[in-house]
Amino acid sequence: MSKHLKILPLGGLGGIGKNMTVIEYGHNMIVVDCGVMFPANDMYGIDLVLPDFEYVVKNQDRLRGIFLTHGHMDHIGALPYLLQHLETTIYGTPLTLGLVQRQLEEKQLLHKAQLRVLPKEGWTQAGPFRVSPFAVAHSIPDAVGLVIDTPVGKIVHTGDYKMDETPSGGRTTDLQRLRELTPNGVLAMLGDSTNADQPGFTETEQVVRETLDRLFAEARGRRIIIATFSSLLARLQEIITLAHQHGRKVALTGRSLEENVQLARELGYLQVPENTLVDAQAKVRPENLVILATGSQGEPRSALNKMAEGSHRQVQIRPGDTIIISGGAIPGNEEDISRMINKLFERGANVIYGPMATVHVSGHGNRGDMRAMLEAVQPRYLIPVHGESRHLYLHRQLAQEVGMTAEQVFILKEGLPWLSDGQRAWTDNALPMADVWVDGRLVGEIGEVVMRDRQRLSQDGFVVALIPVNRKRQLVGEPQFVSRGFVQLEQSSDLLNAGRKEIKRQVKQGNQDLRASLETLFYQATQLRPVVLPQFIQV
Amino acid sequence: MSKHLKILPLGGLGGIGKNMTVIEYGHNMIVVDCGVMFPANDMYGIDLVLPDFEYVVKNQDRLRGIFLTHGHMDHIGALPYLLQHLETTIYGTPLTLGLVQRQLEEKQLLHKAQLRVLPKEGWTQAGPFRVSPFAVAHSIPDAVGLVIDTPVGKIVHTGDYKMDETPSGGRTTDLQRLRELTPNGVLAMLGDSTNADQPGFTETEQVVRETLDRLFAEARGRRIIIATFSSLLARLQEIITLAHQHGRKVALTGRSLEENVQLARELGYLQVPENTLVDAQAKVRPENLVILATGSQGEPRSALNKMAEGSHRQVQIRPGDTIIISGGAIPGNEEDISRMINKLFERGANVIYGPMATVHVSGHGNRGDMRAMLEAVQPRYLIPVHGESRHLYLHRQLAQEVGMTAEQVFILKEGLPWLSDGQRAWTDNALPMADVWVDGRLVGEIGEVVMRDRQRLSQDGFVVALIPVNRKRQLVGEPQFVSRGFVQLEQSSDLLNAGRKEIKRQVKQGNQDLRASLETLFYQATQLRPVVLPQFIQV
Repeated sequence: MSKHLKILPLGGLGGIGKNMTVIEYGHNMIVVDCGVMFPANDMYGIDLVLPDFEYVVKNQDRLRGIFLTHGHMDHIGALPYLLQHLETTIYGTPLTLGLVQRQLEEKQLLHKAQLRVLPKEGWTQAGPFRVSPFAVAHSIPDAVGLVIDTPVGKIVHTGDYKMDETPSGGRTTDLQRLRELTPNGVLAMLGDSTNADQPGFTETEQVVRETLDRLFAEARGRRIIIATFSSLLARLQEIITLAHQHGRKVALTGRSLEENVQLARELGYLQVPENTLVDAQAKVRPENLVILATGSQGEPRSALNKMAEGSHRQVQIRPGDTIIISGGAIPGNEEDISRMINKLFERGANVIYGPMATVHVSGHGNRGDMRAMLEAVQPRYLIPVHGESRHLYLHRQLAQEVGMTAEQVFILKEGLPWLSDGQRAWTDNALPMADVWVDGRLVGEIGEVVMRDRQRLSQDGFVVALIPVNRKRQLVGEPQFVSRGFVQLEQSSDLLNAGRKEIKRQVKQGNQDLRASLETLFYQATQLRPVVLPQFIQV
Repeated sequence: MSKHLKILPLGGLGGIGKNMTVIEYGHNMIVVDCGVMFPANDMYGIDLVLPDFEYVVKNQDRLRGIFLTHGHMDHIGALPYLLQHLETTIYGTPLTLGLVQRQLEEKQLLHKAQLRVLPKEGWTQAGPFRVSPFAVAHSIPDAVGLVIDTPVGKIVHTGDYKMDETPSGGRTTDLQRLRELTPNGVLAMLGDSTNADQPGFTETEQVVRETLDRLFAEARGRRIIIATFSSLLARLQEIITLAHQHGRKVALTGRSLEENVQLARELGYLQVPENTLVDAQAKVRPENLVILATGSQGEPRSALNKMAEGSHRQVQIRPGDTIIISGGAIPGNEEDISRMINKLFERGANVIYGPMATVHVSGHGNRGDMRAMLEAVQPRYLIPVHGESRHLYLHRQLAQEVGMTAEQVFILKEGLPWLSDGQRAWTDNALPMADVWVDGRLVGEIGEVVMRDRQRLSQDGFVVALIPVNRKRQLVGEPQFVSRGFVQLEQSSDLLNAGRKEIKRQVKQGNQDLRASLETLFYQATQLRPVVLPQFIQV
């Protein structure tokens, strides 16, 4: 077992989500974060994507604990899946652990983990590593970056951060503390790359607060409905405070919103003035009400989307309602969001979204913020993380702008280990890695083959041809077709008759590979390529 | 037949694309534009969406001609489909008609239309209507808006426009001419709503020109590859001129690009300095070359995407290449574009896109431009067109900001006719309308039923159960399953055995509706809902 430091990313590189990194020295490893990714639009039917954590499961005897940077699902969501395979200690801030605890309780896995609060000051020992957090400004309270002291030098993992000087909740990124923790320099920094293609600085949350304040004033006399992420707890705090200031009650709709608000209140991360929260069906005059709803991404089953469809049990959209979408579009969701907004307008609401008013800012720092982090940490090596390839490469360009050489920046892939003796750094052979798809109850069982079938079925459907034959493979009846998603069968008797004729001709000639000839026939008639499956049935 | 003016939108409202409007008076009608729409991501397998032009086909005896505003596919692309049902005269500017002619020749439909150039000055008579164009700045040369003189007053159709004072090609929107054509006011304006949710003015093309000039200078010594829309002829002109100024040759890759450049040169809309165009395989040093490619939307079969995949026949991406994506993301294409950009970075290229540099501006005017149009035309009535619902409603809000009342703005739907006697205006009963989907060779044959099947197949696949029975519906053999896109069958023998058992049990009990019980069984085991189709086979 080599006495080099090894950093092995298991997720979060090449796509946004499923963040998970192994840090290993000798027979000891710790893990930073353990998140899920939401599937791309062409991962048909998939609910979630997990990091490939096989390496951790196999080497669980070496695992000294999991350290979490914050409580968003792309950083903690895979814990229930990992804990089906091992037991360990999980370290994090109180809100982060609160969110983890709820997840583990739901899956009845709480006994598999010891949850330990990371003290604000001082170091937490885990094998040969010592870990100390520093506060970062992000879109959820209690977010931290980590300084990890290893036998060959200090590592900084930034977590998700921005340099907002007036963030919600007042929690700024504590570069002062970070510098105190690393008086002798930093060997390597793993840095958030999410907004590496956004110039300038991320706008401050203060602007959102001011904009919402103005919109509340303009909506005087009318009901206000605001959709945001249920995990954007800092935004929820602002909205609740503003509602109180404008003499409005707040009703919550959407299960995740209700749960997160309850948890954050219990842990003291959300200050709700007395008598402010009401039930969505409470008798409050519309002009005195703010309805907080899930659905900023147009998710079909979200509260706001149901209101747009007219199928929400408690809330009907009325002409004059002011609706504010306070959450950025996650790439791939644009069409769902637009569809929902269109329907809300059609019901007479005034919808405020996108560039029309600054009702959302990113939780991640733009290039200006990222530059400030690089200049504060001045790492010997940079490992861009938390980004698609383009973000990682643009993070490298930024590092070069502040004086690092290309050799000081390592663009890794998931499974590609980075090693260092404290001076030099290099990469080693990559482990084979595969995304693990969750589909219903199936974890990792749906693979490329099934996915290719789904993609093809989605385009052109299928045709199963039932061909009754005797033992000599002679036709003894009329072939039948079972088909869905191809053409409307009732209106396609010519096509089906041609198919039957073709089957008879081919069977007579003794051709037993009917698939190709049926595919050709269907393609010539329609230019579609359904999945064709001939089945000989011995009668 | 009523002597009222009727405006009947057949497309372009409620979605961006398939623009088509009927303008009717007594026994006479003209049509403005006849475009296609590109399908949303959840219209599985669909190639194109056509407007429902049944009304025009049925009433073709009244049709006095089709007037085109410009040559983009969302304004001319449905002509080959319409002309399969009727013959007519098509009016447009020379470039627009050139693009139409090429389309019709390809489909061997040129004999179905008389193509007539709209004179720049003076009126063109069509039944009781007189039509005169005015120049507009848009992202294709030779674009116009139309003034339509009707028996009850003048109508303005803006076409697609922006108020750019320094556009490519120097063609500004000619409000002066528009005012001269409407000295006695405008009864109704049909106004482009595309960017109604974008504040301020659309940035001028001059900025794109300057940015590209700077990028060309920065890329000295390296190859430049630029992806843009093949229909963005004005942008192509800028790039070709810049390439020449920077001492570079230009190679075209992508069929639509080559065709459009050829056509625009023939018609005099594209000035290409001598010896500038070269073959993609010509022996030109990389630093002296600009490759113009299709693929700004990450389309799988586009030239740039093939380069990103490493499968382009002529061009291999090399470290150091500068690649510029000079085209905005059409909603729904974001994931494809990102994937392509990621792969280009992974091959060592430097990709310039999105907010990192202004290498694209919209061809449509923002709210500032739209306000200028409203103030110039001062119509009695506004009919927002060319937009999703949100854009139409936000266009109405804008009209109210410049002093119109809500009653002066008519938000129509496709099929909902607007009528006027020259003073008052009202709407009548809506015609039933349906999007017409083109899928391969099938036009209008794929409907909601097939689409719902495709959507369900895409999520969870299908299972056909083959159940051999005798005449008494008694099982006489082992049931078999044919399945794709559900689970990996080789690894699911337990599930299949359970399925067979269930079939035996149900058949024994005489239950002939096996579908529900199999669906339940599969759902309980997997939480997936494949399409289940039991087939009794009489042996």
